[in-house]
Amino acid sequence: MLTVNAYAAPSATEPLVKTTIQRRDLGPADVLIEIRYSGICHSDIHTVRGEWGPIQYPQVVGHEIVGIVAEVGSEVSLHHVGDRVGVGCMVNSCRECENCLAGEEQYCLKGNTGTYAAVDLDGTITQGGYATHIVVVEDFVLKVPESIPFEAAAPLLCAGITTYSPLSHWNAGPGKKVAVVGMGGLGHMAVKIAHAMGAEVTVLSQSLSKQEDGLRLGADHYYATSDPATFETLANTFDLIINSVSALIDINAYLSLLRLDGTLVSVGAPAEPLPVQVFSLFGNRRSFAGSGIGSIRETQEMLEFCAEHGIAPETELVAADYINQAYERVLASDVRYRFVIDVATMA
Amino acid sequence: MLTVNAYAAPSATEPLVKTTIQRRDLGPADVLIEIRYSGICHSDIHTVRGEWGPIQYPQVVGHEIVGIVAEVGSEVSLHHVGDRVGVGCMVNSCRECENCLAGEEQYCLKGNTGTYAAVDLDGTITQGGYATHIVVVEDFVLKVPESIPFEAAAPLLCAGITTYSPLSHWNAGPGKKVAVVGMGGLGHMAVKIAHAMGAEVTVLSQSLSKQEDGLRLGADHYYATSDPATFETLANTFDLIINSVSALIDINAYLSLLRLDGTLVSVGAPAEPLPVQVFSLFGNRRSFAGSGIGSIRETQEMLEFCAEHGIAPETELVAADYINQAYERVLASDVRYRFVIDVATMA
Repeated sequence: MLTVNAYAAPSATEPLVKTTIQRRDLGPADVLIEIRYSGICHSDIHTVRGEWGPIQYPQVVGHEIVGIVAEVGSEVSLHHVGDRVGVGCMVNSCRECENCLAGEEQYCLKGNTGTYAAVDLDGTITQGGYATHIVVVEDFVLKVPESIPFEAAAPLLCAGITTYSPLSHWNAGPGKKVAVVGMGGLGHMAVKIAHAMGAEVTVLSQSLSKQEDGLRLGADHYYATSDPATFETLANTFDLIINSVSALIDINAYLSLLRLDGTLVSVGAPAEPLPVQVFSLFGNRRSFAGSGIGSIRETQEMLEFCAEHGIAPETELVAADYINQAYERVLASDVRYRFVIDVATMA
Repeated sequence: MLTVNAYAAPSATEPLVKTTIQRRDLGPADVLIEIRYSGICHSDIHTVRGEWGPIQYPQVVGHEIVGIVAEVGSEVSLHHVGDRVGVGCMVNSCRECENCLAGEEQYCLKGNTGTYAAVDLDGTITQGGYATHIVVVEDFVLKVPESIPFEAAAPLLCAGITTYSPLSHWNAGPGKKVAVVGMGGLGHMAVKIAHAMGAEVTVLSQSLSKQEDGLRLGADHYYATSDPATFETLANTFDLIINSVSALIDINAYLSLLRLDGTLVSVGAPAEPLPVQVFSLFGNRRSFAGSGIGSIRETQEMLEFCAEHGIAPETELVAADYINQAYERVLASDVRYRFVIDVATMA
């Protein structure tokens, strides 16, 4: 067992504190990663505060992880000591169900093994990336292309793939009108990726406060949803809407913006149900769908797509002792657009 | 103007009564149809009782209409006197919007002109098929193949196309598992059509009371949704679920039955919204969609598909003076599976 530095939540209501945790001894298929950067995702906050259900404490979160391979198990063939690698939202899956066999292990019917707060194969609870090292089986480790700045690569492992996957699955591209609801960590990545895919991109944000950024990052249009005229102007317009907002939204108003055979995909999830008027779906044969992260194959594809198109998240690098302040700023939407922890500050 | 016999609702709360109404003089593109059979759809009842919003009275409903062409306008080329024809849920559309131009005029962005209770081009309120004659522009008149029994053809114009369209659009066919929720007028047609398309068909009905019928009509499996074990047994099973039920259902329980990339399509619409848990959509990347009737092109295709496969609704023929009793029996789900009015009894 390896004892490593980490930042953990002692309970649902206390700030995260510096501590140490144990990483398992390297199995034959395992990779030991020396973590360099770890992104802060809104999911981390939901999880440590018990908002998505009760968890065990202390808990280390973080599932936007990049680092350098420090050691490999005897049977590892995909990665080598010194490689730049990443780990996202899952670290394993059953590998037997029809979804795993279809290469869509994020939808593992037994539940994929989350990078944190999940029950691992050995019965322990997984501990995430706010730590100096992590041990992961090789097939759930991604290769990070050299051309992506290392600290900016971290948020691609969640914010990047979570938006890339539905944009790719629902065929965002030339001739398609894509709206992105929300200009946060996920939303700003959706804008960059949809633009790089060739779609006409519209941001739907509560206010126009981030309009300049939105247009700079690749949006063609920017509307404030606080203005009711927005919903009249844009009725029956979009082929695809990516909703990155986890708060409750007026789902029927957003559905009304879809044109024939359009789909609204939520990647953000409020705890409460959304009241869908079926008549909102009848018009234009609309669909309301969900999408959760992406497969390992697709995550690798996304990393290469981002390298090819020179896409990286906008980040603010913070020291580990700033995590609790960063959480408050995430909750206040006061970040442009993703905090990344410099893990060197945990040494 | 032509004065014709009809059955109309005098108000939202009174029974339908025999009366006369006016049909417009034949325009150059119009077809005068001598109606032979008219199906009774649950929508008729919702409409006359004002459950889908206030309407003007007296109102004649009925949008499952078959009859014989009695006269044609000077420019009509598609139909001839003596032809067996049908009229479904719409009698016109704007013909200019992107959906009309795409041949999907059921989704006309200005709203298609409903066969009843809609504002027609001349400003009058459309009156439906519980009448001896109707005048309709030729492009909204369907050809009814000779091999389909005439009285059984009527319900194809709504119950048939409403289920055929989503089954076709979402690719029901060999290798696909399709569930049909509800074994009523729409549901029993969905079973027949999905079976004829080659899909493996499962009926999900409140009880097993219609199981024998369901299996006879083409279902491979039949489950009672009143049994909670049904939802455990069938979790993650279906590629496509057609929900024909207009009552409130536990939408999240039904969504959980979809396998990877599966879609639940509602063709029934409760007035109240359905509370959708977004987490229900995340699993298996599920979609919740709506579908409204079908295009004229697709309706003609459906009629030919039914002729080719020997498919017709199960009907109970009634006299016009039985309509009010038939309504009560529809509300009590006491019909197997569609009432059809013998319009000769209105003479």
